[in-house]
Amino acid sequence: MNKIKPRTLSGFMELLPPDQVYFNAMMQKLRDSFSLFGFTSLDTPLIESADILLAKGGGETEKQIYTLQKGNNDLAIRYELTASLAKYVALYYNDLTFPFRRYEIGKVYRGERAQRGRFREFYQADIDIIGDGSLDIMNEAEIPSIIYKCLSSLGLKRFTIRINNRKVLNGFFEIIGITKPSVDVMRVVDKLDKIGTKKVSEILVETVGISQKQADELLKLVTNKSEPFGALDSYKGRNETFDGGVEELAILRKHLTDYNVPETHFRVDLSLTRGLDYYTGSVYETYLTDHPEVGSVCAGGRYDNLAGCYTDREMPGVGMTIGLTRLFFILQEQGLLNASFLSAPADVMIIPMTDDLSHSVKLATTMRESGLRVYIYSEDKKFKNKVSYADKLGIPFVVFLGEDEISRGLIKVKDMATGEQTIASYGILTAGICDKIKELRKGAPIKEK
Amino acid sequence: MNKIKPRTLSGFMELLPPDQVYFNAMMQKLRDSFSLFGFTSLDTPLIESADILLAKGGGETEKQIYTLQKGNNDLAIRYELTASLAKYVALYYNDLTFPFRRYEIGKVYRGERAQRGRFREFYQADIDIIGDGSLDIMNEAEIPSIIYKCLSSLGLKRFTIRINNRKVLNGFFEIIGITKPSVDVMRVVDKLDKIGTKKVSEILVETVGISQKQADELLKLVTNKSEPFGALDSYKGRNETFDGGVEELAILRKHLTDYNVPETHFRVDLSLTRGLDYYTGSVYETYLTDHPEVGSVCAGGRYDNLAGCYTDREMPGVGMTIGLTRLFFILQEQGLLNASFLSAPADVMIIPMTDDLSHSVKLATTMRESGLRVYIYSEDKKFKNKVSYADKLGIPFVVFLGEDEISRGLIKVKDMATGEQTIASYGILTAGICDKIKELRKGAPIKEK
Repeated sequence: MNKIKPRTLSGFMELLPPDQVYFNAMMQKLRDSFSLFGFTSLDTPLIESADILLAKGGGETEKQIYTLQKGNNDLAIRYELTASLAKYVALYYNDLTFPFRRYEIGKVYRGERAQRGRFREFYQADIDIIGDGSLDIMNEAEIPSIIYKCLSSLGLKRFTIRINNRKVLNGFFEIIGITKPSVDVMRVVDKLDKIGTKKVSEILVETVGISQKQADELLKLVTNKSEPFGALDSYKGRNETFDGGVEELAILRKHLTDYNVPETHFRVDLSLTRGLDYYTGSVYETYLTDHPEVGSVCAGGRYDNLAGCYTDREMPGVGMTIGLTRLFFILQEQGLLNASFLSAPADVMIIPMTDDLSHSVKLATTMRESGLRVYIYSEDKKFKNKVSYADKLGIPFVVFLGEDEISRGLIKVKDMATGEQTIASYGILTAGICDKIKELRKGAPIKEK
Repeated sequence: MNKIKPRTLSGFMELLPPDQVYFNAMMQKLRDSFSLFGFTSLDTPLIESADILLAKGGGETEKQIYTLQKGNNDLAIRYELTASLAKYVALYYNDLTFPFRRYEIGKVYRGERAQRGRFREFYQADIDIIGDGSLDIMNEAEIPSIIYKCLSSLGLKRFTIRINNRKVLNGFFEIIGITKPSVDVMRVVDKLDKIGTKKVSEILVETVGISQKQADELLKLVTNKSEPFGALDSYKGRNETFDGGVEELAILRKHLTDYNVPETHFRVDLSLTRGLDYYTGSVYETYLTDHPEVGSVCAGGRYDNLAGCYTDREMPGVGMTIGLTRLFFILQEQGLLNASFLSAPADVMIIPMTDDLSHSVKLATTMRESGLRVYIYSEDKKFKNKVSYADKLGIPFVVFLGEDEISRGLIKVKDMATGEQTIASYGILTAGICDKIKELRKGAPIKEK
């Protein structure tokens, strides 16, 4: 028979079992974090009618969409989660209660050119809060707290949440007389980190077409990192949008401590624009302190009209997204997966030392009832191979069950980390193992050095 | 602006938030159950090269595969999880430790004709144990225990796991001189439940072409439901395959109690064949006692050669699969979702009664640190609307935080189930709520009447 070469498409992350354990743990930490803030889970289809996925117009991203035909239907595979949310909210409007808080962690697809660290299939973890007609600013204020909780729960310690408010920028443009489309200006300002003040100034003047004086004043404001509120104060009272934005920014600032976000992990950054048309109020980005080169790992903002292509009903929202596959890739590459995190497929491996496996099976069953993950090694191999199986997989405890132990009602356990062997009654040893496993499970999947 | 009609493709299950909570809980119960038996989680790509997914030949199912083109690549979306496993095991052979126990719960796609209760996108929950060259019978013996654990953990009580062994049937065919392809005979026998003994006998004689005497003897054996081992005994010693199969079946039977599977939930059924060529040893099916019409909800078996299209290495395995989306659909339709299961998006809703929300935010933060899921209602609505928000979503506790409570260091909590209001210190009330929520979370997602 002709053999096929087994292979996985490039750009599709496929993990070995221990890495998958880390990845799953990260997903679980995010789910738990989102839940603490009252978000409910959605799991929308990966395939939709193409017009649904393209309804809001995806620009460049749209070109990367995977499409397929089935009968007369033009179908497409989702390339992000927001289009599905917009459809969901419009379709089930009468069944939902607003504000509607949902999270969705799911795979999305982009037919990008293959490149190291870029994925064609990847997980996004999104949260959004959708209002019906209006949405209180406190929803925007809560987002940094959620970001902080999410990243901390993964085990990350060194990161900064940057926030800004688009109203501040839009109002400021009006104050200093910039009449060019604000999104054009913002797209350039967004590049400050990458290309520096001088180059941004040049592009603003030469390409976008604002005056040098406007560019100078704008750049002076947005690069003020130490006293942003001080810098804003001097412009107050001249423009309603600006004043509204400053007030909103101040509300976010004020509640930080109440929300348990340390000062060290938060910064008002007036140069933060998030280049998209989409956002209208608060915007957020999050940077790993030691890896600024990877860009923002968690970003989002406030928008005004989620479901505009379906309904005249105004549905403002605020949300954020984590590119989980890319984040995992980076953390793995940087060696930040927590080595002491339990990634073995079982807590205990039982090696039966008798022909009749009844006692081993009974012991395994009892241990499983206590919540322990138990594997009975029943293959016909040499003793050495059996122990090395547990060793290779990192299973923390190996139980040996022979005639002698069975007749005395005892079990012999080897702690694979220390090599220590103990003999005691079923109950005592099981309780001891449960305690140690509980300890081992406590860790976060990520550990920064 | 022209509006689009929001819609979801037919055959794609999309759940409202409370139902999604039940669905997620079912997935989690399965993950936990699989883990107890030492299975590690995989999450393989949904899209693969078409030749990978079609490598083993899917017959009828193959016609339902969704294909797409990207550049010069023929891609396809997986229609089951086994092809991906076969590829995975062949591709990462050197990185894996055998026997390799994996579970995967993931979406698969079939472009079937739309029909009530049939899905085009649905979850399969698969487990498989793959050996390298050989695989001990105890792995087959463990499967009924895993099925029992899985279904019980969902909350199901009334079901029967049926088992058989293909070697018994193959050997028996040889004993009574059937020379027609055994898979042809098995496919007909598989229909006993649906079309009855008389019709099966007719087809066996007239279409498959075995003699009436053979058909009678075969049907007498396989329809013996009360004493299957007694019926088998009289044929022992005449065929090696048969004897081996009977012995394997006896091993499965013997360890049932050790594995905690009640006699009431298990049956040796010699008429069980599972029509596919694929299986070579133990086969399993599981039926809901009150809903035999839905067929088997959890099935699988032993096979000899998982990765034959990639490698000459023999990789026998045993596995089973649960069609989770369909199972959920049936249980939901039968009204078996547990009404007392907590499906609210939050445990506690705080209604701030002051302009400054600092105290409410701090309280929410503290409660979240205790693991409570807390939502702060901050929208500008009438008091009545605020309480009714919690009511609609089924949030069990509402906290009212006004000046009076704040100045006295107290909080007021309403238990939405009883209507009872309590005022006490933060710590005492939070501890009390935590206890009650813990109770509420204990239930299983399914409750049979």
